Amino acid sequence: MGANMARRLKDCGHNVTVVQDAREDVARELAEELGASAATELPSVTAAADIIFTVVTDDAAMRAIFTEEALLKHAAGKIFINCATVSPEVHEEIGIACRKAGAHALEACMASSIPQARDGSLYLMIGGEEQVFQQVEPLLQDLSASLRYVGPVGKAAQVKALVNMVMNMNTAALAEGLGLGQALGLDLEMLCEVFSQTGANSRVLETDAADMRDRDHDCFFSAAHAAKDSGIANALAEQAGVKVPLSQATAAQYRKLIEIGRGELDKSAVAELTFPGRL
Amino acid sequence: MGANMARRLKDCGHNVTVVQDAREDVARELAEELGASAATELPSVTAAADIIFTVVTDDAAMRAIFTEEALLKHAAGKIFINCATVSPEVHEEIGIACRKAGAHALEACMASSIPQARDGSLYLMIGGEEQVFQQVEPLLQDLSASLRYVGPVGKAAQVKALVNMVMNMNTAALAEGLGLGQALGLDLEMLCEVFSQTGANSRVLETDAADMRDRDHDCFFSAAHAAKDSGIANALAEQAGVKVPLSQATAAQYRKLIEIGRGELDKSAVAELTFPGRL
Repeated sequence: MGANMARRLKDCGHNVTVVQDAREDVARELAEELGASAATELPSVTAAADIIFTVVTDDAAMRAIFTEEALLKHAAGKIFINCATVSPEVHEEIGIACRKAGAHALEACMASSIPQARDGSLYLMIGGEEQVFQQVEPLLQDLSASLRYVGPVGKAAQVKALVNMVMNMNTAALAEGLGLGQALGLDLEMLCEVFSQTGANSRVLETDAADMRDRDHDCFFSAAHAAKDSGIANALAEQAGVKVPLSQATAAQYRKLIEIGRGELDKSAVAELTFPGRL
Repeated sequence: MGANMARRLKDCGHNVTVVQDAREDVARELAEELGASAATELPSVTAAADIIFTVVTDDAAMRAIFTEEALLKHAAGKIFINCATVSPEVHEEIGIACRKAGAHALEACMASSIPQARDGSLYLMIGGEEQVFQQVEPLLQDLSASLRYVGPVGKAAQVKALVNMVMNMNTAALAEGLGLGQALGLDLEMLCEVFSQTGANSRVLETDAADMRDRDHDCFFSAAHAAKDSGIANALAEQAGVKVPLSQATAAQYRKLIEIGRGELDKSAVAELTFPGRL
């Protein structure tokens, strides 16, 4: 994801000075491709750039890179744009840590995937200080087909958590409908066409139904990510006292995929749990 | 529903000879409007028509009207077109009873609602003998914007059960997402717009989101119907050995609405269970 965003920024004429990855060879290759340097230490990323994009995997990784020994060393005046889907409260924590270091944090939550990063058509929701957002808006426009400022830091992560929460529920729901259709001997192509013309229609019907039928679970958005994101939403719901039985059932399905060693398959693999004879 | 189908058929020039309703005054009023007669006994419906449409509320009502003392008295050669959403096995039973009586049964499952009945734009799925379907196809075309033959009697009810099963799950899922969004203080109009442009999009987002937000639960498709239809799907799943945890959670939500006396509200009222401070 980060590599494709860097390629896109370079294509648009921006000065990509430095890249970094936990796997040093990956960073070196990308640096060569882009004519940038590859940092082995995080403080040298901060030193070599005014605006730093971060894309990490989870809350722990986000906390690890934003310490005074890492990205926040000599970070005064720098702008960090944090793109990982992590908990809203982690974005809030990092926002506070950045302010202490004299730096600025924006969250840039993405409701799209790797191909959209490459061609600059990401759906981006931005949280943070509005003034900082305005400063980097032209840069973000180059990455995005749809850019939206949603409020203070943490709010974009909330919206993203809700998007993925609903998407995951609709996906797990579709897997139940198609799995039962298969068990009843119905023609799934016919069934999907009927779904598409009725109240059963959804975006995931377009994106995931054929993959569920054909067991084509090449990963765009992994089951493990789905489990994580539904978990974030469910934790927010618990804090807020909102009952979310379907989202809990959805998280349980995705956790089950992880337990049986299928966590790295695409989220469409939830159909492996509902189609007859697959497990 | 039945009244609007009769009005539409009359508009299209068909000869509507007789109408019947459990509430005799309703039948009398409609009969006057259409220039038809109002039957007080079911056998006189069969006597007065070649093709008989039935629209009842549930399995028990379907079984009650298709006895030899009712619609099947002197029914040889008649064609029954049964439009209620009932269990697939009830359609199969009625199919057998009709054959014994020398009559024909078609199931015409509707994935649309009362306004579509009036203007002849129903989404109809037909199960039954294909030859009988072809005989009444022109008549059904007058009722329908989309007419589809799906297989032997019982199959259309299965497809319909799956449509409503998925629709109900997507509805209950949306109610969780919006309820949590409200609890987090997010602008729900913004949230719905984001949903509509991402993997969280669905038909029920278009039809139900504003009603959930505004607590506008005027009934198009009642919570009680949703509970019934999800229950039909869940029973099919149990018979077939397919696990459907989200659909079970959905049925439980709709049963809860019935228990608290809200079963006659629209299915969007499931949001009453997820928005903060509503119950």
